Amino acid sequence: MDSCLFCQIVAKKIPAAIIDEDAHLLAFHDIAPQAPIHVLIIPKEHISTLNDLEPTHTELMGKMIMKAQKIAAKLGIQEKGYRLTINCNRQGGQSVFHIHLHLLGGRQMHWPPG
Amino acid sequence: MDSCLFCQIVAKKIPAAIIDEDAHLLAFHDIAPQAPIHVLIIPKEHISTLNDLEPTHTELMGKMIMKAQKIAAKLGIQEKGYRLTINCNRQGGQSVFHIHLHLLGGRQMHWPPG
Repeated sequence: MDSCLFCQIVAKKIPAAIIDEDAHLLAFHDIAPQAPIHVLIIPKEHISTLNDLEPTHTELMGKMIMKAQKIAAKLGIQEKGYRLTINCNRQGGQSVFHIHLHLLGGRQMHWPPG
Repeated sequence: MDSCLFCQIVAKKIPAAIIDEDAHLLAFHDIAPQAPIHVLIIPKEHISTLNDLEPTHTELMGKMIMKAQKIAAKLGIQEKGYRLTINCNRQGGQSVFHIHLHLLGGRQMHWPPG
């Protein structure tokens, strides 16, 4: 997916402030942070939106949440708290069409969530 | 967990507008909706926060996301879009200490997510 920004980050063709990487997932700091801590966790596989997930991706989505938990602990926001958000399509506010989980913390998050 | 509101909903001791149920998950409309569609998806097992997840819960968390995808389609907001949010602890805005995934749609969601 040469045209996908996040695939290019996965391929290390575009730099990012990577903080965690394993065989299936990559995590890096959002370039337009909305909180003191704002990390994106993405599958290395190109999946455009939540709507494109197949049952075979179930474990991968679970791993994405477990990774967020691990990174929150690593960054010291586990106890005070944090918010996870995934946007789908226009009304959800999705801007890059490669699934990404937002991990936000380091400040009080408000309600509603946007 | 007699003191947990969501465990009591799972046990059908407290009513809720349930829209989906299987062996592991329950979904119902939020009683204080923040969008035209605002559904909560919870594991039937009592897990207080994201911090309490064990590796054995990986599949369950994946199923929770797949369930959100299915419900978004069922409610007709799949194409226009939707947002998924999970709060953890105080700064994340968690109010009920039983993990729940918020599915919001039916209006334009804004940025930042709270």
